[in-house]
Amino acid sequence: METSTAAPIVFDTHPSHYRHWKLSCDGPIATLGMDVQEDGGLRDDYRLKLNSYDLAVDIELADAVQRIRFEHPEVRTVVIASLKERVFCAGANIFMLGGSTHGFKVNFCKFTNETRLAIEDASAHSGLRFIAAVNGTCAGGGYELALACDEILLVDDGSSAVSLPETPLLAVLPGTGGLTRVVDKRRVRRDLADVFATVAEGVKGKRAAEWRLVDAVCPTSRFAAAVAERATELAAQSDSPSEAHGIELGPLSPRVEANAITYRYVGLTFNRVQRTADLVVRAPDTPQPDSLEHIVAAGDQFWPLRAFRELDDALLRLRFNEPEIGTIVVRTSGDVALLTAVDRTLDRHRDHWLVREVIHLIKRTLKRLDLTSRSFVACIEPGNAFAGTLFELALAADRSYMLDDPERANTVGVSAMNRASYPMSNGLSRLESRFLGEPDRVDAALSHEGAFDPQEALAAGLVTFAPDDLDWGDEVRMAIEERAALSPDALTGMEANLRFAGPETLETKIFGRLTAWQNWIFQRPNAVGERGALKAYGREGRPEFDWRRC
Amino acid sequence: METSTAAPIVFDTHPSHYRHWKLSCDGPIATLGMDVQEDGGLRDDYRLKLNSYDLAVDIELADAVQRIRFEHPEVRTVVIASLKERVFCAGANIFMLGGSTHGFKVNFCKFTNETRLAIEDASAHSGLRFIAAVNGTCAGGGYELALACDEILLVDDGSSAVSLPETPLLAVLPGTGGLTRVVDKRRVRRDLADVFATVAEGVKGKRAAEWRLVDAVCPTSRFAAAVAERATELAAQSDSPSEAHGIELGPLSPRVEANAITYRYVGLTFNRVQRTADLVVRAPDTPQPDSLEHIVAAGDQFWPLRAFRELDDALLRLRFNEPEIGTIVVRTSGDVALLTAVDRTLDRHRDHWLVREVIHLIKRTLKRLDLTSRSFVACIEPGNAFAGTLFELALAADRSYMLDDPERANTVGVSAMNRASYPMSNGLSRLESRFLGEPDRVDAALSHEGAFDPQEALAAGLVTFAPDDLDWGDEVRMAIEERAALSPDALTGMEANLRFAGPETLETKIFGRLTAWQNWIFQRPNAVGERGALKAYGREGRPEFDWRRC
Repeated sequence: METSTAAPIVFDTHPSHYRHWKLSCDGPIATLGMDVQEDGGLRDDYRLKLNSYDLAVDIELADAVQRIRFEHPEVRTVVIASLKERVFCAGANIFMLGGSTHGFKVNFCKFTNETRLAIEDASAHSGLRFIAAVNGTCAGGGYELALACDEILLVDDGSSAVSLPETPLLAVLPGTGGLTRVVDKRRVRRDLADVFATVAEGVKGKRAAEWRLVDAVCPTSRFAAAVAERATELAAQSDSPSEAHGIELGPLSPRVEANAITYRYVGLTFNRVQRTADLVVRAPDTPQPDSLEHIVAAGDQFWPLRAFRELDDALLRLRFNEPEIGTIVVRTSGDVALLTAVDRTLDRHRDHWLVREVIHLIKRTLKRLDLTSRSFVACIEPGNAFAGTLFELALAADRSYMLDDPERANTVGVSAMNRASYPMSNGLSRLESRFLGEPDRVDAALSHEGAFDPQEALAAGLVTFAPDDLDWGDEVRMAIEERAALSPDALTGMEANLRFAGPETLETKIFGRLTAWQNWIFQRPNAVGERGALKAYGREGRPEFDWRRC
Repeated sequence: METSTAAPIVFDTHPSHYRHWKLSCDGPIATLGMDVQEDGGLRDDYRLKLNSYDLAVDIELADAVQRIRFEHPEVRTVVIASLKERVFCAGANIFMLGGSTHGFKVNFCKFTNETRLAIEDASAHSGLRFIAAVNGTCAGGGYELALACDEILLVDDGSSAVSLPETPLLAVLPGTGGLTRVVDKRRVRRDLADVFATVAEGVKGKRAAEWRLVDAVCPTSRFAAAVAERATELAAQSDSPSEAHGIELGPLSPRVEANAITYRYVGLTFNRVQRTADLVVRAPDTPQPDSLEHIVAAGDQFWPLRAFRELDDALLRLRFNEPEIGTIVVRTSGDVALLTAVDRTLDRHRDHWLVREVIHLIKRTLKRLDLTSRSFVACIEPGNAFAGTLFELALAADRSYMLDDPERANTVGVSAMNRASYPMSNGLSRLESRFLGEPDRVDAALSHEGAFDPQEALAAGLVTFAPDDLDWGDEVRMAIEERAALSPDALTGMEANLRFAGPETLETKIFGRLTAWQNWIFQRPNAVGERGALKAYGREGRPEFDWRRC
């Protein structure tokens, strides 16, 4: 019964195409209304009842959150509400999960986690406050969506409850951050969280507020007014930019061929026999605007915004549509002078709302790369553009090879943007993560005069290997071949552990601890076996469990 | 081909019974010599070649590390060495893993992780320094054992290497802390760690030191002398107690019956139909020594030492021998006055080496409980002894029920020992973890005058529920029945996420992130399927992989 979507999944969308959400803006207050169309899912073997969601629904949500930041900088409060009566959101669709491959489930959860973290990122960095207006049933992923908001208002109608019924009903975890956010973000006491997460019907009314599961409860008659009032209060507290005008995020419209996806600045080419892909990111080919006026005028064509939106889209297509492509060779090309000029512009204008949004979008895209369970190998050759912002791609790679050919100049460069502009999920910059044991090397790299030639880059610890021209071809080819021959699962686990040294955050806890356990459970017969709870749900008969604990 | 050991596994051992290790003490320097007997494993379907290990080998190692602390307080440096030529340790036995059930693999890895953390605990708290004297092959779990030591000396003989071949050879992870310790403890650069963990042959000589995989390399001719010299240097730096005399850890000798294990102070009774167990820990029944002289004289009969050694043993038997017992009802009983006198004694004499060791043993045992993947429900009834140190059991439980019967006195108590003596793996006390969102409540609980009656305990957040005598029977019975009916796997994942809120440490990273991914991989066909790498190892033909990444 495991099926996966045959047609490639597309992530680029627009409010005019939304089927499940309505985005409306009224001055500083935006409302994201959820009204899931039952027949609007990605596959036709399930119906999205009761505002339950699948990837199609979440792609629109992710798009909406991103657009609010770029297209509606005047917004200060976002109300996430349901357009259905007495139901907020029933969570991820169970029949969709039951009929999905393991890999799809894993990637679906990862994407929904990233979307919820994008909500929190907007709250932390864009002066936006999110209110979940919980007007009825709020179960599982529905409550996890509410948990990603700054505040949760629950209607007190004697029946509406928040709940995490995954463990008691489905034998899986609330894996979209639910368990982590309950104890780590909302700091619900662990024994109360234990009760809450094992009671299918959830917790309602006053007790929900007492246990800190919601921020306030409110009778039905006053609910709408209370939500509106709180939205206005929060908007008044925001220090968001005043009279900014948004820019429009146009379609990316890549050319998609059998073995290539080609964007304006990003290209992805597949070698299906080798199970590898070549990813190229090109530096700007024309001088980019360096004044705020011109940056705003350039809008979504401003190189860093365009290039990283493209990269983000490419990574998502790779994850969902190309599961067998295990090793990605990352290259850059183009005019380093134009590129470094962009970095200077970003650094100089980082306090402007649009530049800030661009920097955070680059940050989120790089995090998406860190969290993509494929091996990344950076190949640094003459003509490369691994400098500043684009050098983050080499730092994000699992390893890097830099050609050391005395006949051909080949350099990499660090800019002020590498200092702290693009923190990883662990809260550290990629340079700090790289030199966890040698913090002085971070400063040394950042204060280095000019570009690094291969031996300088090697000595500075910025690249893994710097083979000479005689060894280059064989060494790189063998590294890629050997990588592509290793077990995909072992690599996924290995990379998840090596990429995130240092401190843990809510985010790394979600992607490390919680996700790993959820993925484990998603393999267990008690959940996904023919008699498992996820398969048995909605059918006759109860699930049957192997009672051995491990 | 999956088999599990039929005979119950026993954890209580003694150097005179060791088959695989030789513990020798020479003044301040102890040597733990590894000489694994090929036919000395727990099962007879594999042979422990090349100092590879199984649980039998690790049980002795855990015992030895514990005994050094209690029986040889004069020791300041422990050299972990091999008694075989040109081989240090080849890691966990692959054929043992290949033939083990999933649950056994998971619990085996957990125990070996705890043993390695016990080495680091001894280093952090008992003034011991551990040197791994790597005289030859040091692969996988062998290198992970070395990583747990303070220093690694590698022989430089042109061939001896340290390696983590799990991913390239077996399609699993170095799951006994290897990946975490490489990047987080030794702070090996992530790209170098990536190379290291994918190269089956490992890294040797100067490069191993340059990459920080070892602390020093030394030619064969000078190796023994260099190890001895370094051991002496480290011993000289230690501030360990001077002329202390150890105490002997005698056998626990519980009475083991079909449905009960009974120790002096601890009892475990199984209800196999319900898949539950009753765990009782009894307070001392005689006044305990309160002077150092008498504590030393009491030795292993001193109540806290005896009781928590028993509890530790009971937890291990539960994990390995009783996989279907999913819910543990925790009770305490006995004389609270005698118990709180013990807490005062521990607190007053905490700087004495033996009292310090007792406190750390209690701490490790409570951590073992936190990490035991069973549900714990504390039942607090009249006659209980949930006070001070024993109250940690209620705090460690997933939830607690306290009978509120106006006719019968029923209290719990907090002592100075609850403040910071027994940190969890996350570095916080159980009170701090419990009140992550309300730190003031920690101080309020610690400064409370006298014991807490049920309503006081409830108001202070120290217990989950306080049903009255009318509700008590049904409420507790239903809670246990409902718990025992939930999926064992979902509960394992849920508890692993709810129990460890707050900061992450090397330890929680190992048990959360690393272990969870390893357990996931231990389920994957690419590792454990008939064509998987773990099954294929040592047979003809290569493993076959499903190349989809997720």
